[in-house]
This record gives sequence, C-alpha cells and structure tokens, in this order.
Amino acid sequence: MTDLTIRNVRIILTMPDGANRLVIVKLETSEPGLYGLGCATFTQRHLVVRTAIEAYLKPFLIGKDPTRIEDLWQTMAVNAYWRNGPVLNNAISGVDMALWDIKAKLAGMPLYQLFGGKCREGAAAYGHADGHDEVEVADNAQALIAKGYRYIRCQAGGYGGKAPVRHSPEKSQPGIYYDSATYARSIPRLFAYLREHCGDEVELMHDIHERLAPGDAIRVAKQLEPYRLFFLEDPLPPEQLEWLHMLRQQSATPIAMGELFNNPQEWVSLISRRLIDFIRVHISQIGGLTAARKLAILAETFGVRTAWHGPGDTSPVGHAANLHLDVSSHNFGIQECGGFPEAVREVFPGCPEVRGGYLYPNERPGLGIDIDERLAAKYPCDDKPYAGIPIRLPDGTATYP
Amino acid sequence: MTDLTIRNVRIILTMPDGANRLVIVKLETSEPGLYGLGCATFTQRHLVVRTAIEAYLKPFLIGKDPTRIEDLWQTMAVNAYWRNGPVLNNAISGVDMALWDIKAKLAGMPLYQLFGGKCREGAAAYGHADGHDEVEVADNAQALIAKGYRYIRCQAGGYGGKAPVRHSPEKSQPGIYYDSATYARSIPRLFAYLREHCGDEVELMHDIHERLAPGDAIRVAKQLEPYRLFFLEDPLPPEQLEWLHMLRQQSATPIAMGELFNNPQEWVSLISRRLIDFIRVHISQIGGLTAARKLAILAETFGVRTAWHGPGDTSPVGHAANLHLDVSSHNFGIQECGGFPEAVREVFPGCPEVRGGYLYPNERPGLGIDIDERLAAKYPCDDKPYAGIPIRLPDGTATYP
Amino acid sequence: MTDLTIRNVRIILTMPDGANRLVIVKLETSEPGLYGLGCATFTQRHLVVRTAIEAYLKPFLIGKDPTRIEDLWQTMAVNAYWRNGPVLNNAISGVDMALWDIKAKLAGMPLYQLFGGKCREGAAAYGHADGHDEVEVADNAQALIAKGYRYIRCQAGGYGGKAPVRHSPEKSQPGIYYDSATYARSIPRLFAYLREHCGDEVELMHDIHERLAPGDAIRVAKQLEPYRLFFLEDPLPPEQLEWLHMLRQQSATPIAMGELFNNPQEWVSLISRRLIDFIRVHISQIGGLTAARKLAILAETFGVRTAWHGPGDTSPVGHAANLHLDVSSHNFGIQECGGFPEAVREVFPGCPEVRGGYLYPNERPGLGIDIDERLAAKYPCDDKPYAGIPIRLPDGTATYP
Amino acid sequence: MTDLTIRNVRIILTMPDGANRLVIVKLETSEPGLYGLGCATFTQRHLVVRTAIEAYLKPFLIGKDPTRIEDLWQTMAVNAYWRNGPVLNNAISGVDMALWDIKAKLAGMPLYQLFGGKCREGAAAYGHADGHDEVEVADNAQALIAKGYRYIRCQAGGYGGKAPVRHSPEKSQPGIYYDSATYARSIPRLFAYLREHCGDEVELMHDIHERLAPGDAIRVAKQLEPYRLFFLEDPLPPEQLEWLHMLRQQSATPIAMGELFNNPQEWVSLISRRLIDFIRVHISQIGGLTAARKLAILAETFGVRTAWHGPGDTSPVGHAANLHLDVSSHNFGIQECGGFPEAVREVFPGCPEVRGGYLYPNERPGLGIDIDERLAAKYPCDDKPYAGIPIRLPDGTATYP
Repeated sequence: MTDLTIRNVRIILTMPDGANRLVIVKLETSEPGLYGLGCATFTQRHLVVRTAIEAYLKPFLIGKDPTRIEDLWQTMAVNAYWRNGPVLNNAISGVDMALWDIKAKLAGMPLYQLFGGKCREGAAAYGHADGHDEVEVADNAQALIAKGYRYIRCQAGGYGGKAPVRHSPEKSQPGIYYDSATYARSIPRLFAYLREHCGDEVELMHDIHERLAPGDAIRVAKQLEPYRLFFLEDPLPPEQLEWLHMLRQQSATPIAMGELFNNPQEWVSLISRRLIDFIRVHISQIGGLTAARKLAILAETFGVRTAWHGPGDTSPVGHAANLHLDVSSHNFGIQECGGFPEAVREVFPGCPEVRGGYLYPNERPGLGIDIDERLAAKYPCDDKPYAGIPIRLPDGTATYP
Repeated sequence: MTDLTIRNVRIILTMPDGANRLVIVKLETSEPGLYGLGCATFTQRHLVVRTAIEAYLKPFLIGKDPTRIEDLWQTMAVNAYWRNGPVLNNAISGVDMALWDIKAKLAGMPLYQLFGGKCREGAAAYGHADGHDEVEVADNAQALIAKGYRYIRCQAGGYGGKAPVRHSPEKSQPGIYYDSATYARSIPRLFAYLREHCGDEVELMHDIHERLAPGDAIRVAKQLEPYRLFFLEDPLPPEQLEWLHMLRQQSATPIAMGELFNNPQEWVSLISRRLIDFIRVHISQIGGLTAARKLAILAETFGVRTAWHGPGDTSPVGHAANLHLDVSSHNFGIQECGGFPEAVREVFPGCPEVRGGYLYPNERPGLGIDIDERLAAKYPCDDKPYAGIPIRLPDGTATYP
Repeated sequence: MTDLTIRNVRIILTMPDGANRLVIVKLETSEPGLYGLGCATFTQRHLVVRTAIEAYLKPFLIGKDPTRIEDLWQTMAVNAYWRNGPVLNNAISGVDMALWDIKAKLAGMPLYQLFGGKCREGAAAYGHADGHDEVEVADNAQALIAKGYRYIRCQAGGYGGKAPVRHSPEKSQPGIYYDSATYARSIPRLFAYLREHCGDEVELMHDIHERLAPGDAIRVAKQLEPYRLFFLEDPLPPEQLEWLHMLRQQSATPIAMGELFNNPQEWVSLISRRLIDFIRVHISQIGGLTAARKLAILAETFGVRTAWHGPGDTSPVGHAANLHLDVSSHNFGIQECGGFPEAVREVFPGCPEVRGGYLYPNERPGLGIDIDERLAAKYPCDDKPYAGIPIRLPDGTATYP
Repeated sequence: MTDLTIRNVRIILTMPDGANRLVIVKLETSEPGLYGLGCATFTQRHLVVRTAIEAYLKPFLIGKDPTRIEDLWQTMAVNAYWRNGPVLNNAISGVDMALWDIKAKLAGMPLYQLFGGKCREGAAAYGHADGHDEVEVADNAQALIAKGYRYIRCQAGGYGGKAPVRHSPEKSQPGIYYDSATYARSIPRLFAYLREHCGDEVELMHDIHERLAPGDAIRVAKQLEPYRLFFLEDPLPPEQLEWLHMLRQQSATPIAMGELFNNPQEWVSLISRRLIDFIRVHISQIGGLTAARKLAILAETFGVRTAWHGPGDTSPVGHAANLHLDVSSHNFGIQECGGFPEAVREVFPGCPEVRGGYLYPNERPGLGIDIDERLAAKYPCDDKPYAGIPIRLPDGTATYP
C-alpha cells in the first residue's frame, strides 16, 4: 500500500436534474482502476471550487500517498494560510471523500465498516411538503406519508411565506419581497392545521431559513410547542447564534442548525453549550468526511444528533457520504433527502435507495457509488453563472436568501 | 473493643422473589455471634461483585478492626487504584453496611440512633402503579391509595410505553423496540387523566427512565407542570446531565435523579448547582452507608431531598439501610418501596414493615435485619447469567435500558 | 447621481515585488473616467478569487448603482447562499473598496473625510526586524529605529525560530520542520536582550504565528511581561480562541489577533468579552472597508484598538484603504507596514508614504491611489500555483503555516 | 462479511514480567484463523474482569456479527444497566479492541489506516527516571537521554517522595507513610537541579499522583513554571477536578490528567472547558478503542493533546492499541512507554518497537500483535490477590495510592 500514489485529480461538472450544478472530484491512483469520488458541490459557485482544486489542490496532491487521509486533510486545511469558507472547504471535501472511498475500496468494504459498522440498517429520511396554503401543504404531507415518510418538513408558500407585500417605499429596489410579520403569524396556524389533519404520529419540521428577526423567531419557537415539532430549522442566521441562549431559556422546541456553517467557531461552542438539538451541516461545506466524522462524535458527546443537509445540491456522492455516516453514527437523528430524479440515478450508478421513508446504502466497497462520465457530459452545467436575486423585507431592506 | 477483628467475609447469593439475584455480605467478627450484614446487590452482574469481594476485599479485611469504618471505607475505595463503578462500589457497600450493622450492635442501638436519632417515626414510601393504558393505571393507583399510599409513581405501558413500533428499516437487528415520540405524547395525557380521576390530594411521580431525547424530556417536563408532579424521575441519562440547565430554565417540575450514579462527578455539581430536587441514588451503587450518609448531608446543605432507589433489586438489607437514613436525615424526601413478597420476608427476618404508606424500622440493635441462610439457600440465583436484550428506537438505534 | 451605473468589473493580476500575487479590482462606471480600485488579494489563491469575481460578482454588479454601497455589500455577502471565507470575502472586498473609492471621488474628497475626517495626521507604522539570532535582530531593530520607527516587531529565525530539528521518527514526511519547545525558550531571551540593547523607549512586538501549543503560548505571554511588549501577536490559532480566557487570567501582555479571521464568529465575542487588545484583521479577508469600518467601531466600543494586517500581500490599494481607516478611527492603534519596493510604487501611483515611522495618505479624492496597468502587465504573476509546503513539528505532525 | 459471527470469547491471564497480571481477550470468529485480541487489564482486579467477561459478555456476544463494532459497544456499555467503572469498562475494552483488530484484519490493513492513516511515522515515548535524590534522578535521566529519549518523567523517591515520616500519633495504623509537605518542597528543587544538570533541550514531566492537597498542588504548579515542564501529571484526584479552575487562573504549567478516569463526567467538561492540556486516560479503563478514538477527537476539537497511560499494566496489546491511535491522531502529544522486557516481547510477538525514543507500529493487518498462548501459560498470574497497602499521611490519614 505504501507505493500507492495519487496520479490525477479530475473534476467533473454535471447538472443532470437541470437545476443543480454538481461538482464531483475523481481522484485517480497509480493502481489502474483504483479511484475515489468526492462531492465538492457549491452549486452557487461551482466554477470557483473548480479553480481551487485544479490550480491548487491538484498540484499539491499528485504523487502523494492517498492512504494518509488525516495528514492530507490537515495539510490541505491550512495550505492556503487563510482557511475555512465554502470554497476552500468544498475543494477539500471533494478530495477527502475520494480518499475515504479509495481507503474503503482498498479494504474491500463499504465505508461504514471503517466507521465502526452499522448502528442501524437504514437512515430515516425526511421529505419536504410545500404548498400555497395549509390545505395544500397538508395534502402534500399526506402524499409523503402514503409513500412511507414519517418525517416531513412543512412550509406554506416557501421560505418566509409568499404573502404579497402590500406596502413599500416609493421606487424600491428590485428583489424578492416578503413580509416577515405575516410569515411569523402564519407558522403556528399552519402547524395547528397540520396536527389536526395529519394526526399526531407524523413527525413535523419547519425551516425558518433565517427569515425572522431573532426575537420573532424565539416567539415562534414558543408558539410552536403545542404542535411538537421534531425540529425547528435555522431560526437564526449564523451571525446571531448567541440569541439561542434566550431561545433556550424560553422554548423546548428542538432546534436544528448548521447548513450554512463552514467555520468551527460556528459549531463547537453551539454544541458544547447544548444550544441546539440537531447539527445539520452540509458536509462538503465543512471539509468532507474527515471533518463531519469528527463533528458527529463531538455532537454525540453532548447529546446532539446529526441531521446532515441533503437537498438537490448535495450530489449523490455527497448523499452516499452522508449515508455511510448515518448508518454508523450512534447519534444519527434524521437525513434530509427528497429522493433522486431518474437522470441523476443514471449518471450516478449506486445512488442511495429510498424505500418506505428509509435510505439504504449498498454493499459495494467504498462509498458504493460511481459516475458515468459519458452520461454526465450530456448534462453540462448551464452557462448562466448564478448571481442570485436579493431577498428583501417590505421596506426594501436586503436580508438572508 | 480494640481487640475485635474481622474473622470472615462471606457472600450469600439468593433469589427468593424469583427475579432479583441478591448479593448479601455477612461479615463475621472475632466475637462469637457478632456479625453484620450488608447489601452488595448488582443484580445484573452478581457474580462479578462476588469475585471482587471474595478475591480482593476479603483478604484485605480479615484481621482488621471492624470499628474503624471510615478508615476502612477510605482505604477500600482506593485500594484497587482505579475506583468507583458499580462493581467495586457494590463490593464496598456490602462490607460498609455490615460494619455499620456491627457498630450499632456493639452500641446496643438501632443504627438510626448513631446517625443522630429519629427525625420522624416512619418514612413515607411510594408505590408504583403500572397499566396498559391510563384507565388501568388509575385503577391501580386507586388500589394503592386505598392501602394508604399517598405517593404513587405512574407509568402506562412500562418505561417508554409499550406502543408497538410500526416502522423500522428492513432487516433490523433484534431488540426491544419502542417509539419515544409516541411515549412522549402519552405522558401529559396520562397525568391529565390521573388528576381528573384520582384527585389533587395524591402525590404523583413519573419515571422517564432516560427514554427520551434531551429536548423531548424538557418539553415533557414543561407540559407536566399543570399536573403538579411530586417529581419527574431520570429525565436524562447520566451522560447528558448538563441539559438540566435548560430544563431548569423552562420548567418548575421537580426533578429526581441518581439511580444510575456511581461516581461523585455525577452528583456533586448537580447538587451544588441545585439542578435537581431529589437525589435518588441506589446506595449500594455508590459504596454503601458511609457514602450515602455524606451524600444526604451534602444534599441537605443545598436544599435537595433524598429519595433513595428501592426497587426489587435492593435487598431487604439494603432497604433497612435506606430506612435508617430516612428516619434520621432531616432532608428525607420519600422512599421508593413496593413492599416485600412473602418469601423475601421469610428469608430476611426483621425486614422493614410497610403500614399505611409508611415504612417503619424495628428497634433491634444494628440494621435490625437478619438472614436465614438455610432458607436463602433454597432460592439459588438462576444460572442463566444476565445478558440483557438491547433496547432500540424504531430505526434500530441502541438506546438506554 | 442616480443614473450612474457600474459598467464593468475588471481584474488586474500583478506581482511587481516578485513574490506577492496581487489581485486588484477596477470597477468602471457609466461616467467616463470615473472608476474605483479595490484590493482582493488572497495571494495563495489568487486565481480562485479571480473566478469568483469574474464569473459571479461581475454579472451581478453590471448595471447597478455604485453609490448604494451598503445595499450592494449586504446582497453580495449572502449572494452565494454560503457566506464568508477567504475567497468570497476577498472578492467582495475588491468591489467594496472600489465602491468607496468611487464614492469619495464623487464627493471630491479623500476617503477619510467620509469616515469623519482625520483624528491624526499620520498613522504610526511598525517595521519588522528579523535575524538569525538576537544580535542580528537587535542590529536590524536599531536600523529601523534610525529610520524613525518607534514600533518594531522582532523575530529571531523567522516564525517559530529556525533551530534545526535534531530528532524525528524514521522515514518522516517532507515538510518544513521546527521545534516549538526550542522556539518557546528563545522568546523571553530575545526580548531580554532587546530591552538591554535597544532600550526602553522603543515599542516591541512579537508574532507567535500560532506556532506554540496553547499552554506554551500562555507561559510565554507571562514570561514576556517584564519586557513590556506593545503586543504579542497570534498566540493561538483561530480554532483555539477560548484559551484566551486562561491567558487573560495569567498575563497582562497585550494581545493582538485576527489576521486569519474571515468569519464574524471569530471576532465578535473575542472583542465583546475583551479577550484581546488589538484587532488585526486583513481587511480584504473580511470583506473590505464596509466590514472593517464596522469592526473598528465595534472595537472602539469595547476599548480594543485596530492594528490592520499589512504585509507584502496587502496591495498598495489595500494599504490605502487601511490608512484611510487609520487616520479617521478614534481607536486606531498601529499599522503594520514595511514600506514599498520601488517597482511596487511605480505600478501604484499614489502609494501611501512612510516618513519617520508614520504613514501618510495623500489628499487626492478617493483612496488616492491608482494603478498603471501597462506597467502592472510587465509583472505577471508566476504561473506556478501556490501549493505550500507543510509545516511540521519534530515528530512529523502537520501544524499551522 | 455478513455471515461472520463471533464463535468464542476467551480470556488469557498471564504475567510474563513477574509483576503485572495481564488480561487478554481473544475473540474468535466463525472464520477459521480469524480472531482479534484486546486488552482488558485491570491488574489490581484481574479476576473480577475475567468474571465480567466470561459470565456476562461472552454469552451476549456469541453468535453476533463482529463487524458491528459501534452497535456492540453501545449495547455492551448499557447492558448491565449500571455502567462505567473500571471493571465493566475493561471487560468491554477487551472485546472492543479485539473487534477493531478483526475489522482491520478483514480490511487487510494495519488498524491506523482505518483511523485515517499516519500523521507521523512514530510516536514519541517518555521514559521514567526515578532515584533516591536529585543526583540519582539526573543520572538516570541522562541514561535515558543517551538512549534517545527526549521526554522524561522524573520522580525523586517515588510518588510522593520517600522522605521518612518523623512524627505520627501513638499506635498509628500500618501503611506506607509519606509527608506531603516535605514532598511539595522537594519538587521545585528537583527540577531546578535537573534543568541545571540536564540542560534545556530535554522535555521534563512530573507526576504528583494526587499526593498533595489541592492548594499545595496549585502552589507547586506555579513554582515549577521557570523549569518549563512538558506537563505536570495528576495534580488533583478525580474527586477534586474543579480546583483546576484555580490552578488555571494562576499557573501556565501544562497539566496532564486522566489515568484514573472511567466515567465521561470526569473528562467531558474538563476538556471542553480546557482545564487540562493533555488527556492521559488508560484506554482500557474507559472502554477501549471506540471510546478512546472519540475522546481523542473531542480533545482535538478543544486543543487538548493525547498522552495515553502506558505503564507496565498496559499489556502489549493495549500498547499496540495506543500506538495505532498515536500515529493516526492529529492531536497526539506523547506516549508513556518504558519499553518491554524480553519475556513480554516473547509472549507477544509483534510487540511495538521502541527505537531512539520513538515507538513504531508494524505493518501487519489489524493491531499487528499476537499472543503465544503456550508461552503465556508459563507465566501464570500470582495467586496472591492484590489487596494493596494503604498510603497514609504523617498523622495516619489514609490517602490516595
């Protein structure tokens, strides 16, 4: 094993679902046919991550021993002197997951075995029920329940609601406007309705998505207590985490946070002070499996459960990484996963399976997932770079997207 | 008195109730007929405690002066270099209680006299009302009330409830499955029903038995406030005690903890920071009367009351030890005791008496309890060593038993 | 003014000092000849920042009103959904400084006027005295004193010292090895020597550069007390900031931190808990003047002074931005600046002047600095992408660069 | 791999060095020739651990899948209801290490590969220099330096010193007496002498071994500052950890603790509050590799380094486990290891090698160590069970051993 080296680091960009620009790292070794895959998807800045890997990590890695994962992770983490952030972390993640994929292939085992083996056979997934109003949300939730989902995140009108803004200053700037006061009022009503129409058995979540002022978020967390959420997601932006102290003094609604985190200062004290119940980072955004495995163990120590971020901009390779952690982490809580469109499944053979509300890994060595590069090439990323439209409060104030 | 020495340390294993493997230490002295009894019962590992005493404590003790209890306790506590833990503490407890028994016999007094004399004539005991549903629990509670119990712990469907788990991943591992969400929902409903049907006079308790995630336990503690529990027991596992800060910020439901404790780090700061209202250790699990007496005094200092653990795996000798503390500790709160089956009472002459919801010690010197060894031998411990069946959450995650 | 729009966003890469890859943003407006310059230099990842600006910020900005700086900053900050980190922040910084340059040009004033006018005429700068041993460091410090510098940062043997590592495990990995124990011992000796040979008048600093274990850094901070440092720089890595509590309990040596920060979680509580005396961020690494201006004000509130990072990888444009803050911030402390090589001054007409240990801004409108693009093109960045060589402790452990 | 089961759990007791009763678990699988070894050595209570494994863990394990390490660890940890403590944790450790040995053998890799690969080629070890007085200690330290050791723990007169106790009450109890005041005075003198005679390069440690009152230990930690200890070991007993706050406010001497820990309450907040610099648990005493790997990662998060306990009562199997963690944990600090007598090396083929002050693992799959059972049987454990002699202060007070 000591003669094994990294021969090449390739980046594959693909967009099989027509929406998410996926960034996959393929790390090839000196052993013919032995390679690893990793997810480096920062869909809003996919080309930046590509430059970071191609121009910097690739020359650093070529010729190095791929089995020294910890040492490579630590050296990549500080290699640009300035560290962390979504770009550098995703670049490292692409490499790191690929290294673990290679290591488990060398071991001839599914990756979860290296993480201590299975704690459970499948990982419960949560679906997402949206709708214009509470009736439509309830209908969509029922459809998911019928498919076997027992955990459903419910949003009426999308993040922040979609009630039209009735009043803004003259000549206000363009943007997507929403009214946080209207939104805040609507949440308890939505869950009162859902509990009445969907019953007590189903576990419900809601994502504030940073769309409320801190005090309003705390009030909503209190008002939601009677409806027993499985968790309330991102009640606060990462800049305002200390408000969680006030929230925790007043509300027992379980809190999930982390999808925006990319710096240890955002999660270490949050967990060690038990200000959240679920850590929900996007694992490529914190540097991949090496970082996420450590974070899962940190969280276990403090009684916090994992709920890795898993929307469409988590590639199937990223989902496989999530899933190998999910089945082997004692403190797994829930996995976000809405399933995979047909085209995505074809590009990524070995994609995790969703059956009856559970995700199942396969038993192939490594992450158990591959990429059909020829097929991937048929779904090129769109050439319109992501610029984003500002989200604004009624008076025009720019706020969180 | 200084010529008195320990002549023998004998262990008696017996299982008169057909369920609990009791470990009794009989410490014989150089004075014919003068011996002491102690409880070293760790029912799930009874043979391990026996080895600890026979192979290690016994040779250490023989020839020593049994009146130097404090010195013997301190030297036994650190004698294996590594200290604490349920095995070593139970072994020490068996010896320690026997030493106190001897001391009080030498004094010609019931043991409570050496602890300062009676603060009360009897110790209020709480019974345990179980049932498949709230109706059955209420019926059983009423039956206990009729017997004179004024304090009743109520559980519907056992610890964690018994609602069948409807949904698990394919090929899940064997175990006893329960659904914590269903259980959490059921608790406030149970107590609403009990308050309606059993009235306001009776004191009610409930034992979470670590069967909820921390956030869920806190929510339940809040929801139970209107039903005025005497205490809520073990809302959290010993690994997650710091969550009590959040619980205390949100709920005034009194909290009892400690049956699993066996290390001072688990109780000292809990009490000195007033995070609980009742300390509920199993006194043989913390090293016997010497340790429990000090713990009672520590708790008194901080306004915390005692509620020593006392289920079927506390032997009558252990119950007698509890009771001598109960009647002499100013900060006594309540004593768990469900009474003693006939066979148990026969094996242990002098067993504490339960009358009208109170436990009464007798007035014989020492602990006031004896063991009929010939009878005890008729109830040998079963030869199937306790292995335990894992308790699992619906998705297969192993959790607390 | 409302018809003014951003017409183009151009990036100029140049390396006039032969070592630092500078990234300059030139933001052109619809008004002919009206443009702004900003520093986006992340020298270790210059190509990544370029992609971030060209592919994402540029299309977002074109057509927008350049006078709405706050709104543009806020929208750019969250525009990629994931935020912060050295790449995205530098990209924003390039734009943000250019926007302030334009705004002040429109006002016909040097930028410091918009920040409230001068609090002082020049900003004291600190030089950097290096050397193989304490004698050479003292000589170099004296040379700087002769030039008028009153503040000198002193390092013997570079960061972490240069004592050869005498002992490593067999077959250790390549890297730059240093011995932190030897280094720690050398620091108090160096400053004892410097105080003896350079006198008491000069202000001395030292940069630990994260090269000690936390406990060792704290001990060194204590041992340095008799030599009265102006500040001790970066005693801890950003991951271990909480150790500052222990340092503050034991040592009154003033602490400067921040050059690695790029996330508000790294500085907000550090300042509000007064764990440091000087905030030393690299302002392009936190998102430019808009962020740094707010950070300076936060620091003023808590009695913390500014000491913006200013080594060779801060372009003259970045230095001009630092300087406009320096002269207008009431809580300015000190400015790192080693002066500018001739080639750099030629490429950047209007470069800040260092005279007698003070930096002086010029009185031209805006930042007061320009770039000679034709000349800049003569100093292309090297085509060897920066990969970095791991820094290692004697036993081979990778550590901070 | 899914058909693989545990076929047998055997315990091997051996004492090849004539002093330490080693407890080795051999876990045999259904695959002929595939087995794992683990260390369950609690040398002071070896027979108790044997009972715990044979009578309880063995029947629980037989027939189970050995690759499900995390699930087996979690279920064994709570399987006796009462948990933690040196007996149960050692029993679990024996099984847990054997499971990791099997897993790595199945992978065909040395175990460190499953933990992320090497961060360093060898682990620096510290030797132990004892002596009647400072001169003898210095001589012994020099002898170790000559062998290549760069880290040396120095004790004059053994733990607590050996100065005769001049004054005790009449008829005091038997025991090993020492004078803590004399001892406390001697420590700074010893290290002043050592620094003068052994120079500045060598790293020195000292072990208080809980032999001082808290206030005295804090004073000594302060007095030792000028002699720059690598760490001061166990200044406080596990019951008095909170005194570390006072120590940390006053002294920068690095602190190592943990060899006595066996309950998470003893280490979690110690580390998360950064009250120590090195965590020094005996990994079989906390439940083996699964627990120690998590603890290493917890410590890494908070900037605390590992220094696993490794005296003669750590078997070579335990040392191999330490070493696989040492080379793969980024935050490794130092490994206690005094080398292995010839007889020990013969009984345990594949025993870690000490060369020039570094420990090296071998490259065989798994832990890389085996046991020669026939040879082991030639070194039976002595039949005198360990009872220990009380350690006493001059006035006879029993104290820590």
